[in-house]
Amino acid sequence: MSKKSILDTGVRKVKNVGGFHFGSGSLEELPTYVETRRAIAREQKKCEGVVFLVDHFFRGQEEILARIGAHVSDRIAFVETKDEPTTDGIDQLTRTLIAEGYGEPAALVGMGGGITMDTAKAVSNLLTNGGRAAQYQGWDLVKRPGIYKIAVPTISGTGAEATRTCVMINKENGLKLGMNSDHTVFDQIVMDPDLTATVPRNQFFYTGMDAYIHSVESLSGSYRNPVGDAYSRETIQLCRDVFLEGDMMSSGSREKLMVASYLGGCAIATSYVGLVHPFSAGLSVVLGLHHCVANCIALNAMEEFYPDGWAEFTRMARGQNISIPEGVCARLDEAGFRALYDATVIHEKPLTNALGEDFRAILTYERVVEIFQRM
Amino acid sequence: MSKKSILDTGVRKVKNVGGFHFGSGSLEELPTYVETRRAIAREQKKCEGVVFLVDHFFRGQEEILARIGAHVSDRIAFVETKDEPTTDGIDQLTRTLIAEGYGEPAALVGMGGGITMDTAKAVSNLLTNGGRAAQYQGWDLVKRPGIYKIAVPTISGTGAEATRTCVMINKENGLKLGMNSDHTVFDQIVMDPDLTATVPRNQFFYTGMDAYIHSVESLSGSYRNPVGDAYSRETIQLCRDVFLEGDMMSSGSREKLMVASYLGGCAIATSYVGLVHPFSAGLSVVLGLHHCVANCIALNAMEEFYPDGWAEFTRMARGQNISIPEGVCARLDEAGFRALYDATVIHEKPLTNALGEDFRAILTYERVVEIFQRM
Repeated sequence: MSKKSILDTGVRKVKNVGGFHFGSGSLEELPTYVETRRAIAREQKKCEGVVFLVDHFFRGQEEILARIGAHVSDRIAFVETKDEPTTDGIDQLTRTLIAEGYGEPAALVGMGGGITMDTAKAVSNLLTNGGRAAQYQGWDLVKRPGIYKIAVPTISGTGAEATRTCVMINKENGLKLGMNSDHTVFDQIVMDPDLTATVPRNQFFYTGMDAYIHSVESLSGSYRNPVGDAYSRETIQLCRDVFLEGDMMSSGSREKLMVASYLGGCAIATSYVGLVHPFSAGLSVVLGLHHCVANCIALNAMEEFYPDGWAEFTRMARGQNISIPEGVCARLDEAGFRALYDATVIHEKPLTNALGEDFRAILTYERVVEIFQRM
Repeated sequence: MSKKSILDTGVRKVKNVGGFHFGSGSLEELPTYVETRRAIAREQKKCEGVVFLVDHFFRGQEEILARIGAHVSDRIAFVETKDEPTTDGIDQLTRTLIAEGYGEPAALVGMGGGITMDTAKAVSNLLTNGGRAAQYQGWDLVKRPGIYKIAVPTISGTGAEATRTCVMINKENGLKLGMNSDHTVFDQIVMDPDLTATVPRNQFFYTGMDAYIHSVESLSGSYRNPVGDAYSRETIQLCRDVFLEGDMMSSGSREKLMVASYLGGCAIATSYVGLVHPFSAGLSVVLGLHHCVANCIALNAMEEFYPDGWAEFTRMARGQNISIPEGVCARLDEAGFRALYDATVIHEKPLTNALGEDFRAILTYERVVEIFQRM
């Protein structure tokens, strides 16, 4: 909307998440939000069915599933999280929902981690905009508001509950890129820290670090927004409380990390990541590593770029007794490194944010390979 | 919506401002936001006229007024800020707009300080909900969404751009109380720190302190929300940067204070104020003192309740060479103090937040009078 290029000025225009419900036990409010949408659909004589995309982790957890407010006529689809979302997978899920009569649901709930929430965002946009997911990878390509969507994060860190993107891997061109759009922002989030009590420790740490890492990247970049800076600072402070003071999985810490995740998402919605995320994206695309562990692996090799963040991250991992995978690129050949390089330097915006427009002069092929070899 | 009382749990359900545009020069985006709403109205064959409520400070400032995107057929109304908004004043303005054919404008812009923004919120709600302003003073009494409303803050501190209330004095019953409602939240805010360059220094300080004071109150209270706590901490940190480090009116400081105001507003939207605001409300209702200077006067007499906040506030005022009015209650008689007491202790929620449900045992009439006598 601004006449200036976004790269000249940083992000100035921000769409907020519609609203949030926060606190232990908040899951009990989900049915109310769902019913409100059902009532609106009823009034408009539209489909009252609701689609629940739920992390496969909750498959069979009847105690939880009984609390989400699903009717028998609703559609619960479990989202596999072994691999990160692909554009093909999103297209397939969207086609299935349409074929089953859920092409215009009253609401779409994404309950789970970043993968599940991103899947909900992408499907929501596709259902109202038509076409295929890959068409919307990029910036502001989504034309119409998606289906009303509610996020229920069950692990903290990615900030997917607050951002304007949903990241997908396009297997055809090897790109990992999101639908960056105001229409991707959730209408409502229900943040219940009770839901994160059962996350495995390693995953809890890796995912939590996403909030820390993108805040560090954002504050080190040159495209800044003072609102985003404030969010980033507070996110980092909350991560310090969680990961440097006692047990990261105490109820107080889980509550704080859920706030950090939300604020970190708000931060990244007003700014850009830096070097860690592009390298991490390379690891995801080429080696299939999940986003959050890949971030940790990438930062672990980036002392030269983020000396303070690296040192603090190392203390956090040590303090929580978490080990970061090493040697992940050990068996790669030349073609593998070439693929890593390509999948990394494609991320021009964050790399420019971190190193300036001449980032390719710093991130030569040799330098990039050398960094990956350290991972 | 929660089955639990809001006082049992603190505020858990928060509606966010729809979105914001931040940064020097952002005023140039206001016409785009206005035109978007005009286009929607045109499509729906509704009134395309836009109402601009503008702080009287800008009367005659053609250079600024030429940039807000007003058409000849729009209505610009200047809002007097000598006195705080009254329910009667809001009713009168609403009637005038309806009589002039602006009963259903395409958008309503509130450009100014807290008084102007609160006026815009109240009028927006009244235009769609009918009735009189006093009917909606309280919690969640507004039934329908208001006219789409855009805030352009021109002074920083009150957080009115981000809160779910608009405070009005009801002359009939002497109450100072807001329309607390999700419908009161702005749909869009345009934050341009250039606009605060011409604020008189005293006013800049007093108003900025509102953000500091309600964050201090919020963090000292018992009804807390971890998201709100995060906003409050960052607001206080930004206020320290602005008021303890160099000139509070440098462009960098004005930018930071605009962020602090927004985040402070977000904080207060998830929590409650404490002792300062109720006493301040008393000063406003009985003595006609403006909200922000009244806050400063009140905190200045509250070392016993907020020792750290009081000390830091004192350093800030001294550092910026601002004096806080004293002796404002010197000429009051018994009836005056009785009115002050009544207008203070009526604010049960914040006083309970600060002191517990037995706050009246602490805030006896004698104690309250003694505190006011120190002001």
